[in-house]
Amino acid sequence: MPFSDMSREALESYRPDLPAPADFDERWTATLAEARAAGGEVAVTPVDAGLALIEASDVTFPGFGGDPVRAWWLRPRGLTATAPVVVEFNGYGGGRGLVHERLLWAAAGYHYVFMDTRGQGSAWGNGGDTADASGGGDAGAPALPGFMTRGVREVETYYFRRLLTDAARCVDAVRTLPGIDPTRVVVAGASQGGGLAIAAAGLVPDVAGALVDVPFLCHIERGVRVAEHDPYQEIARYLAVHRDREEETFRTLAYVDGVHHAARAQAPALFSVALRDDVCPPSTVYAAYHAWAGPAQMVVYPYNGHEGGQAYQQRRQLTFLDHLWENR
Amino acid sequence: MPFSDMSREALESYRPDLPAPADFDERWTATLAEARAAGGEVAVTPVDAGLALIEASDVTFPGFGGDPVRAWWLRPRGLTATAPVVVEFNGYGGGRGLVHERLLWAAAGYHYVFMDTRGQGSAWGNGGDTADASGGGDAGAPALPGFMTRGVREVETYYFRRLLTDAARCVDAVRTLPGIDPTRVVVAGASQGGGLAIAAAGLVPDVAGALVDVPFLCHIERGVRVAEHDPYQEIARYLAVHRDREEETFRTLAYVDGVHHAARAQAPALFSVALRDDVCPPSTVYAAYHAWAGPAQMVVYPYNGHEGGQAYQQRRQLTFLDHLWENR
Amino acid sequence: MPFSDMSREALESYRPDLPAPADFDERWTATLAEARAAGGEVAVTPVDAGLALIEASDVTFPGFGGDPVRAWWLRPRGLTATAPVVVEFNGYGGGRGLVHERLLWAAAGYHYVFMDTRGQGSAWGNGGDTADASGGGDAGAPALPGFMTRGVREVETYYFRRLLTDAARCVDAVRTLPGIDPTRVVVAGASQGGGLAIAAAGLVPDVAGALVDVPFLCHIERGVRVAEHDPYQEIARYLAVHRDREEETFRTLAYVDGVHHAARAQAPALFSVALRDDVCPPSTVYAAYHAWAGPAQMVVYPYNGHEGGQAYQQRRQLTFLDHLWENR
Amino acid sequence: MPFSDMSREALESYRPDLPAPADFDERWTATLAEARAAGGEVAVTPVDAGLALIEASDVTFPGFGGDPVRAWWLRPRGLTATAPVVVEFNGYGGGRGLVHERLLWAAAGYHYVFMDTRGQGSAWGNGGDTADASGGGDAGAPALPGFMTRGVREVETYYFRRLLTDAARCVDAVRTLPGIDPTRVVVAGASQGGGLAIAAAGLVPDVAGALVDVPFLCHIERGVRVAEHDPYQEIARYLAVHRDREEETFRTLAYVDGVHHAARAQAPALFSVALRDDVCPPSTVYAAYHAWAGPAQMVVYPYNGHEGGQAYQQRRQLTFLDHLWENR
Amino acid sequence: MPFSDMSREALESYRPDLPAPADFDERWTATLAEARAAGGEVAVTPVDAGLALIEASDVTFPGFGGDPVRAWWLRPRGLTATAPVVVEFNGYGGGRGLVHERLLWAAAGYHYVFMDTRGQGSAWGNGGDTADASGGGDAGAPALPGFMTRGVREVETYYFRRLLTDAARCVDAVRTLPGIDPTRVVVAGASQGGGLAIAAAGLVPDVAGALVDVPFLCHIERGVRVAEHDPYQEIARYLAVHRDREEETFRTLAYVDGVHHAARAQAPALFSVALRDDVCPPSTVYAAYHAWAGPAQMVVYPYNGHEGGQAYQQRRQLTFLDHLWENR
Amino acid sequence: MPFSDMSREALESYRPDLPAPADFDERWTATLAEARAAGGEVAVTPVDAGLALIEASDVTFPGFGGDPVRAWWLRPRGLTATAPVVVEFNGYGGGRGLVHERLLWAAAGYHYVFMDTRGQGSAWGNGGDTADASGGGDAGAPALPGFMTRGVREVETYYFRRLLTDAARCVDAVRTLPGIDPTRVVVAGASQGGGLAIAAAGLVPDVAGALVDVPFLCHIERGVRVAEHDPYQEIARYLAVHRDREEETFRTLAYVDGVHHAARAQAPALFSVALRDDVCPPSTVYAAYHAWAGPAQMVVYPYNGHEGGQAYQQRRQLTFLDHLWENR
Repeated sequence: MPFSDMSREALESYRPDLPAPADFDERWTATLAEARAAGGEVAVTPVDAGLALIEASDVTFPGFGGDPVRAWWLRPRGLTATAPVVVEFNGYGGGRGLVHERLLWAAAGYHYVFMDTRGQGSAWGNGGDTADASGGGDAGAPALPGFMTRGVREVETYYFRRLLTDAARCVDAVRTLPGIDPTRVVVAGASQGGGLAIAAAGLVPDVAGALVDVPFLCHIERGVRVAEHDPYQEIARYLAVHRDREEETFRTLAYVDGVHHAARAQAPALFSVALRDDVCPPSTVYAAYHAWAGPAQMVVYPYNGHEGGQAYQQRRQLTFLDHLWENR
Repeated sequence: MPFSDMSREALESYRPDLPAPADFDERWTATLAEARAAGGEVAVTPVDAGLALIEASDVTFPGFGGDPVRAWWLRPRGLTATAPVVVEFNGYGGGRGLVHERLLWAAAGYHYVFMDTRGQGSAWGNGGDTADASGGGDAGAPALPGFMTRGVREVETYYFRRLLTDAARCVDAVRTLPGIDPTRVVVAGASQGGGLAIAAAGLVPDVAGALVDVPFLCHIERGVRVAEHDPYQEIARYLAVHRDREEETFRTLAYVDGVHHAARAQAPALFSVALRDDVCPPSTVYAAYHAWAGPAQMVVYPYNGHEGGQAYQQRRQLTFLDHLWENR
Repeated sequence: MPFSDMSREALESYRPDLPAPADFDERWTATLAEARAAGGEVAVTPVDAGLALIEASDVTFPGFGGDPVRAWWLRPRGLTATAPVVVEFNGYGGGRGLVHERLLWAAAGYHYVFMDTRGQGSAWGNGGDTADASGGGDAGAPALPGFMTRGVREVETYYFRRLLTDAARCVDAVRTLPGIDPTRVVVAGASQGGGLAIAAAGLVPDVAGALVDVPFLCHIERGVRVAEHDPYQEIARYLAVHRDREEETFRTLAYVDGVHHAARAQAPALFSVALRDDVCPPSTVYAAYHAWAGPAQMVVYPYNGHEGGQAYQQRRQLTFLDHLWENR
Repeated sequence: MPFSDMSREALESYRPDLPAPADFDERWTATLAEARAAGGEVAVTPVDAGLALIEASDVTFPGFGGDPVRAWWLRPRGLTATAPVVVEFNGYGGGRGLVHERLLWAAAGYHYVFMDTRGQGSAWGNGGDTADASGGGDAGAPALPGFMTRGVREVETYYFRRLLTDAARCVDAVRTLPGIDPTRVVVAGASQGGGLAIAAAGLVPDVAGALVDVPFLCHIERGVRVAEHDPYQEIARYLAVHRDREEETFRTLAYVDGVHHAARAQAPALFSVALRDDVCPPSTVYAAYHAWAGPAQMVVYPYNGHEGGQAYQQRRQLTFLDHLWENR
Repeated sequence: MPFSDMSREALESYRPDLPAPADFDERWTATLAEARAAGGEVAVTPVDAGLALIEASDVTFPGFGGDPVRAWWLRPRGLTATAPVVVEFNGYGGGRGLVHERLLWAAAGYHYVFMDTRGQGSAWGNGGDTADASGGGDAGAPALPGFMTRGVREVETYYFRRLLTDAARCVDAVRTLPGIDPTRVVVAGASQGGGLAIAAAGLVPDVAGALVDVPFLCHIERGVRVAEHDPYQEIARYLAVHRDREEETFRTLAYVDGVHHAARAQAPALFSVALRDDVCPPSTVYAAYHAWAGPAQMVVYPYNGHEGGQAYQQRRQLTFLDHLWENR
Repeated sequence: MPFSDMSREALESYRPDLPAPADFDERWTATLAEARAAGGEVAVTPVDAGLALIEASDVTFPGFGGDPVRAWWLRPRGLTATAPVVVEFNGYGGGRGLVHERLLWAAAGYHYVFMDTRGQGSAWGNGGDTADASGGGDAGAPALPGFMTRGVREVETYYFRRLLTDAARCVDAVRTLPGIDPTRVVVAGASQGGGLAIAAAGLVPDVAGALVDVPFLCHIERGVRVAEHDPYQEIARYLAVHRDREEETFRTLAYVDGVHHAARAQAPALFSVALRDDVCPPSTVYAAYHAWAGPAQMVVYPYNGHEGGQAYQQRRQLTFLDHLWENR
């Protein structure tokens, strides 16, 4: 039977009661404070991307532990006025690739920053350039996955604690870039990138908007139970070996679960979900969507899998941002 | 074993002797003449793609039989000087999709025309808008494949005769668009799009350049023998049923084989090939590359499958076109 | 888990409320009237099938739009009395093949007509000989599928509108053949053939019986939701691309849905269903069976997939027809 | 890459030198003598198959060890003259099924006997009725495979020794049936049935003809090396466990290898081979074909897999037998 | 979705009402009586396993019909006191293999007997040495499966009747071995071995304990309905061919169903179940566990498939036996 | 076709000319010197494994960078004389698991040390306990693979440089354990463990013997070209993304290639190879075997895949070691 985890009706009222860890806010406050205290500079180097209409730069900013994290920054060539920015995070296993790959938002007149994902970038696409320095120095340079269980024994060592911190610190860094209006930062992403956008919007609640497509890292326990594929199933395979670590593993995972981060997000959000998504099942997406503390809309793609709405959803996002600025 | 059809050394000297049908040129000359005689206008309608930097239009031009064929036309907003154009053809099963999907060439300062593929556009991506009118009127509206054997009993009725003619007529149409330099038309495409680019460059030999990636429709008989997947295997499955039509089928296919069209192409070409490509095996790509009558370069991706060089190859193409105009 | 969509008990009382389009009857009445008005002759050519006991002919009759549709006609050699006829329709992707392939009904003493399927016949078996003329002229000659979405944008252009009309017109034609008792026409088929038999029995309600095995094209919306394979999933893949055409697509499909045609059928019917059928799920079969307006029996094969009852079911059918004529 | 084990040219001259076991003829002579000595009667029971044109009987004849083996016997109803017979053997895992399943040869005017396969008949189709009595009494009743390694430790206990003997004894039995011309017995079969037809023609060299399609059990050692599927791979899996029995296993298999039986066959034969056959690879078929001691023709299906020529090949066989009798 | 047949909560209270055949006890009493009456000796031959710490013997004991069944017997070298024994049965398709493969229980200080499985032993591992003599003499020597439907037409001829009897007779034999305490026999096994351990504990109710892991042959009808793989699905495939034997087949299977044998077992038992087990689904395991007439504990592995708890479960078993003897 | 990379004859003479990097010895000498200089103690903690015959300890020794690496140490309980030791390394993705899992060598009278694999241990089996400390501190705790490309940009940061050093340092540590004869250390392993055994025997050339089964990490470039599965294909996927790093990647890999380490090994070796091994293809195994500088024997399993000889090979190894000590 084609994948489906709940009927459309059940999804629309699915609001599981998932309590966050008691020290969730305390821990994240401390984590961000430490990361900000670690210092490090935002370095910007111009890049010749061969694009007549778009100016490009290679940005390095301090992420978790002050580790250098790379990003591409694109904007309309010759743009002089201050303008809003879209900050996008990537899907699982991908890196920032080459500079000319993602042109939509700059072509639409926005600043655009695409964050590299520490340690990832070798599974598909055109590569990444950011080592997971606090997770292994040079040995943490981009390599094949999986990342779901790296350091999962406790939240302090967990890979995704570092990555979510990078996402929040990326927003910090972007606000310092010349020509960007720091009050108009939109976070965006699909799959893992959607999970990071949720986390960034929860950790930096004054972002101006969020574009969240088929997000991963939401309602993780259910994801492990119903998703048919990696990355959720990496956790199941890990627990099939480490048969005595179920409780501690889900305790760690709770700190990166988008359901809890969504409950702290204030910005207007545009979500999308695909009802045949066997990687990030719709119930897990709805759980985060329904937990979102700010205003939120959902776009449903009933016949799509994890690819979701693709260009159709981009068209919705272009309109959503148009209206967002209009209404402010 | 990972897919490989010949060693790298063997590929570099692989030049199979494949005679074209005796009336190859005569038939194609007649076909193009008929298509041009069928008339029809090039209609251009502005489109709001939501892109500050890029102007977009919906183009309809007369293809095979004068049938209306759709295309997207993108160019730098406010471009006043005459500029070169990249005309791209699409891969098998895809349509032109939505207008904001392919921004590279316009962002790089070129005119860019992306031709819809008659009847195709329903297998992946974001859809198509061109019916295979001469192949079934409204009933020929975009729908799921396969197309490899539609009308294959004789070349007159064969689907790809219509599609190759569209590609050539697209070049004709593009040359009439305002602001485009008709002497600087580059044809481009990957997979089926690569096969169409080869055909367009052979049928319209005064195009200025060709960007051909992992092309399909080349050395078809070998493709049927060694490729592991559709579309080449559609032909094998057809012949497994129509056990008495092997000879006539390959007779038809010879008219659309890129090896023969390449032998008539004069423009400088940049090819790419992936050595693990089990859809368009490297030997079939090399056969067309070695047959190319104009100057040609090959970029080899030894570890890639049919996805080929992706952004790495785009970077090569940006440079190739830069040098092309420089040298003229 | 082995495929199952509902428990056996649930199936037995499954009678979904599926309203037909308001103009269902009107449209079909018009469609048949047009087809009949298009004229065309029934041509019969003797064929040497090499069979001592059976006489064979190649029949061409006018189908939708008057298009020539082919069929094989077999009957006991030397049969002089008027006799009943079994008219069979084929499964998806198959053609009428060679004349000596289906001998059961002639060997059992009946006239037997096996209708070719326009445009199909290249996916398995031994080929077909009928072009989808109104759907593309010579370009519509048999070729590989898929057919589910050809012209689906509106019912006027939809492939299956043409095919269902062929099935009804085949009954018309058969009634004119010498030696056949026009009051004793039985329609039959499995899978797509079963869907066509249902449609023929609904469109030509005075047929004498129907043999319907694991029928396709019934309760289509549910089929798309629960079937694991093509052809139902062709529709899902089409809608995954054409994300904005869900409503219009199912509007078109309603006109060919066997549930509505069954509700207009009057003849005694023998159905069969396989409980592990992941191509034509049992709930979709029961929906048509329960909608059947005439007397109907169901044979259940609990452990079979789409192959269904095979020779076991044939034995039931031989008996069913024996009793049918006895009771008249 | 689509399956291919040798080029077509290489196949046409492939004549491996495979010596038969020294006592091959001696053992088989003794085996047949014992089986004939075991006695047992040929019992014929009329069956109502519901077929007006064909008379059917259920036959039981003594096979290996005198074990009762079942068969269906069909012939034109009312046939009075003595006529030739086609004796067919079945593919791996199948049984004789129901009586009305195979009608071609009777409809063509021949006597037709279809032998059940001891112990098999539960893997596909409509079942079998013959226990492998000498291989387990009632416990040997039809059940799922595999059979390739049953008793393979020595030829005396090997399953296929029993089955090949059944095939030879079936010819003996058929020659005693009323109305059958004992000088015009043709043996036939596809896959395992083809292997049995070869064996029967070698063990009973005065049969009148052989129809051998994509035969199994030929050049077995190569089959194990190159075939992609069962049944050949059952042997490989067995040897992967019984790592010390390679030599003795192939010693046993040599006694049932069609290459050696073909070398003893005298009758005219019509073979067919499919070049993409990954179950019975073409090289193994050519090895038997080239070893055939009588006159032989080969029909090649270049694009088919193990399904081979199907109805196309039947048409060839009808013609072949027509000419065979003509020439006698 | 990852395999799951019921939620964990539902499993914990799953106690299906499955009545045993009326003559269940009568038949088994008769079967065991016959087997015991058939006589035969327990033969013990010392084996040099190359193990300094462990003494090994090759044991042959009379099983069903007095057939010779092989087993390995291992015990601490130089052990003089009487000691308990663990008798283990093997999984489907495996044989006793080589003598040095299973060392845990002897290394832990126990006698250990590992019973070969008649006819099996060729599908994985290192082979078996026991023919299914009553099921085919030498022809019944180990060979590839399947065994699920051998002789299933009635319980008298069914393969598993013979195998369960072997398991009970193995306990009889073990009790006669020197140095083994006949009051402290523990039966053990995983998958098919677990089913045999259940049966042995039901048929020989005074065994001292049972270690039952992910048992097969329990609640068989449900296993056929929900398991995704063989061996349960062998039964479904058999019934898909023998469409008229559903009732008689399940009648036979009821005699070997672990649910009924568990209801007759008295010994303390340690069960384990894996919640993602798609071979022996958890509901079938719980059905037997809840039916167990003696004291029983269940260990749950929520993320494992059919591999179950592996070394984790062995650790539990070592402790369980330690406590078992302590408490006696 | 079943996997095969070369014929058996070709394998037996396959000696590719693969030059080691110029500074191979220099680098490894420096690496080992640094590791030895890093210090750290060998700690031994008794463990209650519940095994009456075997004494067990948990060992921690200093590996690469002095990082603590865990191992299990088993030996006959009460053994007083000095005895030889077998040091085993594990396959890819596995950890040392639980202490009672591998009993053969202790039961055979040897000391036995089973080294944990840093960072691995979460993909199958029962877990591991060693972090890849120099590769990420606590964040390097066991987690799912892949490891093939971790830090592969240069040999200094490459994961396998650390792991091979651990293997050599494990031999150092084992020689200090009480009761172990430091002149009689045998290294052993299958797959990755085989590659580590080769490396240990090359880096510590005075080990007394090597048992090398289906080794991984040998003739790596060919492995990437012909193996069908991970881990070799991890490298290909990495290079399919990092299209510009082919040369540097293979430069790094050369330092861990077993072909070069074998050329430095002096101890007698028993190799095994499986001719259908699609994970570690036979040609890569033969390349290392033929490069081995000491005396070596090869055992061939023609029908096995990567599971190789299993218990059959263990039997050969027991005998090989018996003879080894005898001859000294």
